[in-house]
Amino acid sequence: MRPSGRAPDQMRTIAFEPHFTRHAEGSVLVSFGDTRVLVTASVEEKVPPFLRGKGQGWVTAEYGMLPRATHTRGNREAAKGKQSGRTQEIQRLIGRSLRAVVDLTKLGERQIVLDCDVIQADGGTRTASISGAWVALRIALDKLLESKALKEDPIHTQVAAVSCGVFKGTAVLDLDYDEDSAAGCDGNFVLTADGSIVEAQVTAEGECYDEELLLRMLRLARIGCGEIFEAQLKAVGK
Amino acid sequence: MRPSGRAPDQMRTIAFEPHFTRHAEGSVLVSFGDTRVLVTASVEEKVPPFLRGKGQGWVTAEYGMLPRATHTRGNREAAKGKQSGRTQEIQRLIGRSLRAVVDLTKLGERQIVLDCDVIQADGGTRTASISGAWVALRIALDKLLESKALKEDPIHTQVAAVSCGVFKGTAVLDLDYDEDSAAGCDGNFVLTADGSIVEAQVTAEGECYDEELLLRMLRLARIGCGEIFEAQLKAVGK
Amino acid sequence: MRPSGRAPDQMRTIAFEPHFTRHAEGSVLVSFGDTRVLVTASVEEKVPPFLRGKGQGWVTAEYGMLPRATHTRGNREAAKGKQSGRTQEIQRLIGRSLRAVVDLTKLGERQIVLDCDVIQADGGTRTASISGAWVALRIALDKLLESKALKEDPIHTQVAAVSCGVFKGTAVLDLDYDEDSAAGCDGNFVLTADGSIVEAQVTAEGECYDEELLLRMLRLARIGCGEIFEAQLKAVGK
Amino acid sequence: MRPSGRAPDQMRTIAFEPHFTRHAEGSVLVSFGDTRVLVTASVEEKVPPFLRGKGQGWVTAEYGMLPRATHTRGNREAAKGKQSGRTQEIQRLIGRSLRAVVDLTKLGERQIVLDCDVIQADGGTRTASISGAWVALRIALDKLLESKALKEDPIHTQVAAVSCGVFKGTAVLDLDYDEDSAAGCDGNFVLTADGSIVEAQVTAEGECYDEELLLRMLRLARIGCGEIFEAQLKAVGK
Amino acid sequence: MRPSGRAPDQMRTIAFEPHFTRHAEGSVLVSFGDTRVLVTASVEEKVPPFLRGKGQGWVTAEYGMLPRATHTRGNREAAKGKQSGRTQEIQRLIGRSLRAVVDLTKLGERQIVLDCDVIQADGGTRTASISGAWVALRIALDKLLESKALKEDPIHTQVAAVSCGVFKGTAVLDLDYDEDSAAGCDGNFVLTADGSIVEAQVTAEGECYDEELLLRMLRLARIGCGEIFEAQLKAVGK
Amino acid sequence: MRPSGRAPDQMRTIAFEPHFTRHAEGSVLVSFGDTRVLVTASVEEKVPPFLRGKGQGWVTAEYGMLPRATHTRGNREAAKGKQSGRTQEIQRLIGRSLRAVVDLTKLGERQIVLDCDVIQADGGTRTASISGAWVALRIALDKLLESKALKEDPIHTQVAAVSCGVFKGTAVLDLDYDEDSAAGCDGNFVLTADGSIVEAQVTAEGECYDEELLLRMLRLARIGCGEIFEAQLKAVGK
Repeated sequence: MRPSGRAPDQMRTIAFEPHFTRHAEGSVLVSFGDTRVLVTASVEEKVPPFLRGKGQGWVTAEYGMLPRATHTRGNREAAKGKQSGRTQEIQRLIGRSLRAVVDLTKLGERQIVLDCDVIQADGGTRTASISGAWVALRIALDKLLESKALKEDPIHTQVAAVSCGVFKGTAVLDLDYDEDSAAGCDGNFVLTADGSIVEAQVTAEGECYDEELLLRMLRLARIGCGEIFEAQLKAVGK
Repeated sequence: MRPSGRAPDQMRTIAFEPHFTRHAEGSVLVSFGDTRVLVTASVEEKVPPFLRGKGQGWVTAEYGMLPRATHTRGNREAAKGKQSGRTQEIQRLIGRSLRAVVDLTKLGERQIVLDCDVIQADGGTRTASISGAWVALRIALDKLLESKALKEDPIHTQVAAVSCGVFKGTAVLDLDYDEDSAAGCDGNFVLTADGSIVEAQVTAEGECYDEELLLRMLRLARIGCGEIFEAQLKAVGK
Repeated sequence: MRPSGRAPDQMRTIAFEPHFTRHAEGSVLVSFGDTRVLVTASVEEKVPPFLRGKGQGWVTAEYGMLPRATHTRGNREAAKGKQSGRTQEIQRLIGRSLRAVVDLTKLGERQIVLDCDVIQADGGTRTASISGAWVALRIALDKLLESKALKEDPIHTQVAAVSCGVFKGTAVLDLDYDEDSAAGCDGNFVLTADGSIVEAQVTAEGECYDEELLLRMLRLARIGCGEIFEAQLKAVGK
Repeated sequence: MRPSGRAPDQMRTIAFEPHFTRHAEGSVLVSFGDTRVLVTASVEEKVPPFLRGKGQGWVTAEYGMLPRATHTRGNREAAKGKQSGRTQEIQRLIGRSLRAVVDLTKLGERQIVLDCDVIQADGGTRTASISGAWVALRIALDKLLESKALKEDPIHTQVAAVSCGVFKGTAVLDLDYDEDSAAGCDGNFVLTADGSIVEAQVTAEGECYDEELLLRMLRLARIGCGEIFEAQLKAVGK
Repeated sequence: MRPSGRAPDQMRTIAFEPHFTRHAEGSVLVSFGDTRVLVTASVEEKVPPFLRGKGQGWVTAEYGMLPRATHTRGNREAAKGKQSGRTQEIQRLIGRSLRAVVDLTKLGERQIVLDCDVIQADGGTRTASISGAWVALRIALDKLLESKALKEDPIHTQVAAVSCGVFKGTAVLDLDYDEDSAAGCDGNFVLTADGSIVEAQVTAEGECYDEELLLRMLRLARIGCGEIFEAQLKAVGK
Repeated sequence: MRPSGRAPDQMRTIAFEPHFTRHAEGSVLVSFGDTRVLVTASVEEKVPPFLRGKGQGWVTAEYGMLPRATHTRGNREAAKGKQSGRTQEIQRLIGRSLRAVVDLTKLGERQIVLDCDVIQADGGTRTASISGAWVALRIALDKLLESKALKEDPIHTQVAAVSCGVFKGTAVLDLDYDEDSAAGCDGNFVLTADGSIVEAQVTAEGECYDEELLLRMLRLARIGCGEIFEAQLKAVGK
């Protein structure tokens, strides 16, 4: 049995609390069990230099973890003066994942910045971030559609992410911190609501894996993302 | 009339939500109206180099603001690679204020780090941080006392802070963002529950002030801190 | 008795040596006893980005300390790659203090940078810097007025600063390094020649203080600044 | 047909030139077509702080690209003062991949640093780096085994990596720069000689993919890595 | 006898391998014995800000050393986040030396960046860099002349550099690493093919020197640069 | 005629004002005409890591320029977060030059840091720094000898430096800023009082030079350093 006592294909309780803060155009507090991430979507009426004048928009993400989101306090990245490789890897993944479901030309020359700040960490912060970022983005774009700043909806489908891993030879879904530490390998799957794969990353952590385990993890990910897609829709009132 | 419609000596609604996160030894979400700051107290069994072997402890603070805590998104300090002068000024003030009510020799060779992260900003983030830091510290030290890691209570009194300013010639208490922007001068007062002053900082912002206004602001600060002291006690169950 | 043997309300010898260097539009070597600060005022025909096109000017300050200005050598900030929190706090204070007596719209779209570099430190470097900065600024603006680059004088009054503290229960004026180290609390007052307060900052250093001591320190500050105002006028030949 | 004219399952010419430089304990110049990476393995008789005294070793990697390895010159990371997110992501992947085939306890308290520097880039620099790193590591450890510094061989199998992608709906192997730019999605597979998967990362670049394409890419990767494994053995004389 | 067994006026084998990489407008792998430096010349159709609109071009250089180019691994400058003083000193010297033989007005508003990356170090990396940079620059400008982007040749003569030193009282030419470590003083001479001196730098390393030794070193440098000039011409096919 | 109206072999007025500041073990304000540099020597009872336990000392230098030491204000290096290549090149030269006349084993395990801060710049700041550094070092070591902390004098001779250049074909001595800007080439010579050369660096700035000009500059440098040696001795009372 897995450390959390959950069945292999059982997600933690997931929750989206939309409009958690009031200044951002879109915001949500997403929880995957004890993992809690605040995601805000900020609309900026400008694009990065490499896109200026090209008639399209951009979606990007930044990721951070409060110093004591974790079991033991980590150093504040702002105080250290640089973002870790892990932070950069995660924020690049979040940005890529969201851009996969957005038609940037329909966005016009504006940028949406998705800030994902981990308030409390218990495994799966990047997958919670991606899943929450879609909600924050949806809320922000709904405002732009309502105000007629946008004519067409740039989002063509939902995107969500969930982690999977192999624990004592069995593929399991949505690892918490204890399970992640004990897993032989673990991965993250970013899927769309229409069944496609945006990103699959599976890494051996002590034990290599084979094609069969890879496929099992992918199938668990489909189950998990299915639940998330439903919760996302409810959060944005659709 | 002041922009918020409050009476000159009227605080915003203040609230302390203790144990907001679960990993830190002490944590609280403090609200002064729409300003919300998450404060965690982390106990570390080591002291900074300049105190090693001196048989005393240390209390320090770090301060940060989520990029979209504000009306328009600010750059992430971790991404810029340095903390602003404002951030450093505030975290030095928080640390100094808390050390004023702690007997560092009773703390033993351990350090308490108070992380103050602004989730939403509407004026007074530094005073909310100081007021919340006392609660987080109190909770963390109560745990150390309970577990007998500490024999004597290092905290000798409460500390709280509140801002005051001069709006159209009248001294007013606990400015929100709009009031702060319109004030002729503004200040921060850090007071202890036994009536002493830990820090007073009053800065002209467009209009200089005189001794009488300084004293009026100090008296308003006493009123405000009185309310905060009560709320702090309730939050820590005393 | 205070360590320096001075009376509680007695300043150290203060001196302004104007035109200490020749390239800057304004320059002065200011001494408060053994504390010596070189202040230069540089006129730049541009403003910072946030003011471009607004038809007004800006006054800003930078502060630095030569590595061996102090009793033991400190690390060079340029070599460490960043300015300390203390440095940033001081240079923000100097800039704010000078802007309080300057009408920025009369300055036109130009910036005055006040560089305050401590040659030798013996307490009170920030108050000497503010007091000297007024002299350097006055000299630089006199040149602009003479050359008709400015039509009206942007400076409406003098500004000066002095430190005060509480030593063994007595409020004392203009602390040197030894006194500062031994003081229970210490503060800095920035006053204008017409009797107003620009900034008051009083910090408990080991001992809290009360309203009465705050007022005594403020009154001592008035005495000290009175002396400085006279010396400033003499230095600029008025 | 793919831009390079190669068959979907056809690798570019791969070559390993061992002992390319003389100071490093192991070195190789690896070529995947026009992509050329110099990999050196440096043996250090110390481990990073988190491993001190734990009786095991460490394998880590650093990655860099010469400014004009690419079609247009990129800025030198040393001059910019920081490594890009991409650089950090790649060097973390290389380190993880090599550690997957090394028994760190057999290494003793020493660290092997694998420096992968791209001399010329034409797609696939990270997979060439991983494949070359194994050769450099093998050479360095053979020296340690020969000199009896090591008793047992810490490497338990070979590791290699290759990229795959989907070009106009067809899965293709070992993309060069032009193909990579035109691919709908692309991925990197890190495999061991005994048939296991160390890491699979497949990212949609404009087009999402499905399970079938994922499996096809994995099968192509097995073909490609098979060729690399043979070439690696020849390079180290086995 | 000198450590290398060479006669005092004997160069190491020098070699230029032009077109070593294919993306750069000019490239060469230069060897002075075991010292090997890859130099690329990149043509950029822009100039640095201080030259904009002045109708002239610029030639600049950057220098780097692969971490394991040396006997023991050095830290990667990109990872440390800054270039050492030595690196900056060398790249400034290379840039200055090349500009001495280029008529910048004939270059038009474009910049040539000369990247000198040390693949393997055995003494004399800066002199090999300068000598190789001329070859890379010559190749790049020949392309611009061929394509008629340039009308006149901006290069008016050849430039080369070689090190000299004093070993046990005798002036010797082209020091390798062992000789350099043992030399009493060492210097670098940058000369033009028409017999002029561009730069002479001779530094005492343990032993001071006199005018006579300075002149002997200069004469040895003429001999060494003579050989280099011939090899440069052969490399560029002239 | 040269711009300053001086004869080719005529120095500017040079002056050493010893004991300019009081905290440093040695200090001097050195002037070469309008160039003024404050040099302090700080004695530290520790050595850099690479010398620990080797029974010898170290002499090192740091160099800085106040932002408005120059005609137009330069950016503060501490604010920019890094020292320029020029700064690093100069401070390396100063350190090397002083070490050439010090027997580091006689110094014991202590370090002398020579801080050279340019108060006003008018050409020749590095040569004034070296010449002044000898005075500050001499004063500091005299104190150590007096207090018996040192048994033998580690300084075996004087060292001084002066710039030379070629102006309209004539070699001239000790260039001021205007002359330096107009010179065809310029160099710095570091000489000892017993007639040896520590460092010679001559750089073409627009015009190459020949052996004869090099020798003429060296001879002028001997004249200039002769004057400096006398003034140094007078400054230290010998």
